[in-house]
Amino acid sequence: MSSDIIKPSTLPGFMELLPSDQILFNKMLDIIRENYEKFGFLPIDTPLIEKAEVLLAKGGGETEKQIYRFEKGDTDLALRFDLTVPLARYVAQHFSELTFPFRRYHIGKVYRGEKSQKGRFREFYQCDIDIVGNEKLGIINDAEIPSIIYSTFKDLGFDSFTIKINNRKVLKGFFLWLGIEDSTEILRTIDKLEKIGLEGVKESLNEQGLDKSTIDSIIEFINIKGSNEEKIKSLKDLGIENDIFTEGLKELADVNHHIEVFGVPKENYIIDLTIARGLDYYTGTVYETFLNDYPNIGSICSGGRYENLAGYYTKQKLPGVGISIGLTRLFYQLKEAKLIESTDASLTKIIIIPMEECIDKAIEIASTLRKHNINTQIYTEKGKMGKKFGYADKLNIPYALIIGEEEINQGKYTLRNMESGEQNMLSIEELLLSLRNN
Amino acid sequence: MSSDIIKPSTLPGFMELLPSDQILFNKMLDIIRENYEKFGFLPIDTPLIEKAEVLLAKGGGETEKQIYRFEKGDTDLALRFDLTVPLARYVAQHFSELTFPFRRYHIGKVYRGEKSQKGRFREFYQCDIDIVGNEKLGIINDAEIPSIIYSTFKDLGFDSFTIKINNRKVLKGFFLWLGIEDSTEILRTIDKLEKIGLEGVKESLNEQGLDKSTIDSIIEFINIKGSNEEKIKSLKDLGIENDIFTEGLKELADVNHHIEVFGVPKENYIIDLTIARGLDYYTGTVYETFLNDYPNIGSICSGGRYENLAGYYTKQKLPGVGISIGLTRLFYQLKEAKLIESTDASLTKIIIIPMEECIDKAIEIASTLRKHNINTQIYTEKGKMGKKFGYADKLNIPYALIIGEEEINQGKYTLRNMESGEQNMLSIEELLLSLRNN
Repeated sequence: MSSDIIKPSTLPGFMELLPSDQILFNKMLDIIRENYEKFGFLPIDTPLIEKAEVLLAKGGGETEKQIYRFEKGDTDLALRFDLTVPLARYVAQHFSELTFPFRRYHIGKVYRGEKSQKGRFREFYQCDIDIVGNEKLGIINDAEIPSIIYSTFKDLGFDSFTIKINNRKVLKGFFLWLGIEDSTEILRTIDKLEKIGLEGVKESLNEQGLDKSTIDSIIEFINIKGSNEEKIKSLKDLGIENDIFTEGLKELADVNHHIEVFGVPKENYIIDLTIARGLDYYTGTVYETFLNDYPNIGSICSGGRYENLAGYYTKQKLPGVGISIGLTRLFYQLKEAKLIESTDASLTKIIIIPMEECIDKAIEIASTLRKHNINTQIYTEKGKMGKKFGYADKLNIPYALIIGEEEINQGKYTLRNMESGEQNMLSIEELLLSLRNN
Repeated sequence: MSSDIIKPSTLPGFMELLPSDQILFNKMLDIIRENYEKFGFLPIDTPLIEKAEVLLAKGGGETEKQIYRFEKGDTDLALRFDLTVPLARYVAQHFSELTFPFRRYHIGKVYRGEKSQKGRFREFYQCDIDIVGNEKLGIINDAEIPSIIYSTFKDLGFDSFTIKINNRKVLKGFFLWLGIEDSTEILRTIDKLEKIGLEGVKESLNEQGLDKSTIDSIIEFINIKGSNEEKIKSLKDLGIENDIFTEGLKELADVNHHIEVFGVPKENYIIDLTIARGLDYYTGTVYETFLNDYPNIGSICSGGRYENLAGYYTKQKLPGVGISIGLTRLFYQLKEAKLIESTDASLTKIIIIPMEECIDKAIEIASTLRKHNINTQIYTEKGKMGKKFGYADKLNIPYALIIGEEEINQGKYTLRNMESGEQNMLSIEELLLSLRNN
């Protein structure tokens, strides 16, 4: 067999972690899931493979180029490239069996055959929530979303982050007021504000053939400053009277008020009139989330309100609001920024190291600890004590229990704190007490 | 959009659950994971897509026919069809960064393009553990595995199940003693014992051209009865003296003794000389697990000891022992047997239903409950109370909290037990206390 060895390797763009990092990654997944459940979301899990015609119902654009698509037998298949299309298909397919508003979370891998580059992944986890209404869905849901973002990122250990909020109707109404029907190109320009600055935006808008007064109005608009309440007042003071602007502004004010009621601290959210979140999908509230100290990481959690989730699969009108965390990329970025260190990661609390003739006692104690839900490994391989301690150290296991004949005779066992090297003789009862308190 | 609707559907052989079932499925996944961690196993997660040449290193047979294989750009890709091949590749690739014995668990989906039929899945979860040694691995590990199976299935709510244990060396040694070098065909026949009975086995062996005395010896062997200890004694009494039989018997006796030390009750494991677990991979201890009341479901957890995990990828000799639970099929079978009912499945503990003008109070209380880790939904859509209770009922949410102006004035809120219909007025402190105790 070994004469013909194939080099073991993974494909570029596919993250694979060592167990110590995997433990940390899984902890983040758990925290996200716990938060989603805390807010009353229910789990779904959809196939990774679907019919290509289903996944590509919307068709066109980048999606079609990046999708993993292949045939098996006569069937044209594809791997999901996000969790939104499968949600749309799921809700349309199971419509009569679901209860609306349908609050679902979905954590799973998605696939995009992107150009391989540092920090870009072809397989990555998305952690999505959506609240989907039947025909209608109240605006309070839009205000609840930032409180979920806040709670989740707090639990993930972040303090300094900002949830940016905007409303597409406000943008649309504003541009309509300026006489601009298609604001796609302008929004694309505004999206680059951070990169190219106000002057750059001006220049770009000028190149698009807008007149000076229109450009001035746009610059004035994106330059609106102050607290959220002041921004809302400034928007009102613009005196724009079309319905869509009025509706958007009312929604934005409503969301802004209720976010505070939801207990999100003032310093963690801000109305930002320059965020638009893509150019066609979202129709109302939009969200982006930034780490204040690492703006270059980009938005770590984004989403928004859409008018109709599943128009490609059903005639039911299904408005909704949702967000997504791209955990694979976030984890990679946090590692790069050294905000995650794997040295402390251990799921196993204690390793039991018996002398050779004491294995049965070791097994008995391990069973007792496991019955008390203490994650326990027994090390029964032959070897010197130093090697066994080395094993525990490499795995970051915090405690070792040494069992020899003397220990068995005394009914007390040597508990070693692997970090400090401190050793104590403990009875089983004392051991249980000690491990529970540590 | 809606003029051109694509029928929303999933592919045959791909399980998709409604949230109430998904909750139960995820609970089973959690229990399995908790047990694996309790026994000191570490998580890994490998890409679903790998190079076809890597996944097919072993090549040949059913695997190649069933595998999902496709090209993207110039690369020949495939979806993993089990978690063992990725483990072998992982251990070979990361060898120098791992610590041996390497105890890993891996829970994930695998893909096999099997002929579509009831109860067969093309996408299914496997939940694997393996203990992989560098060059060698002690036999105690083989005895620990049944205790993990026992603990896991107990926690999954099963009482009446049997872990069947055998040792391939005992089989191999026995057949060598009979002068049979290649026992593949005979083992395949013995595997059918349950189906075709002793007479059927005799007939089939006769057709294979074995002489009467050989057949009699085989029948006598598979017919060995009694307690595990009696079986071991009977095997000894056969007087077989080749090394492989002797070694296998010693291992079997050793494993049998230590399983008991590990605290697995006598009624939950049995030596069964007729199980062989496939025909090439395993080389020592083998396991199968059956529900006593549902033998037709087949083995719900199987595995064994192998001599060398990753010979296709490395020259390092890596012996190991492991098991796998095919959770998708098990879940399907348990549903079919009505051993799983989704009516009680709720992750959400309480739904808060405010009168329209009391939404802010509802949000405030929801935030308090969530801070106390109580999964809480707020229902803020407009509608009649009956409809809102109906919503809670459909989602099996056990409690509803009704908030009106009177409640706010009193500082006490109406807690409704959704099952009994009983209602009580409680302060927030009383509410917290009540929900924690229920």
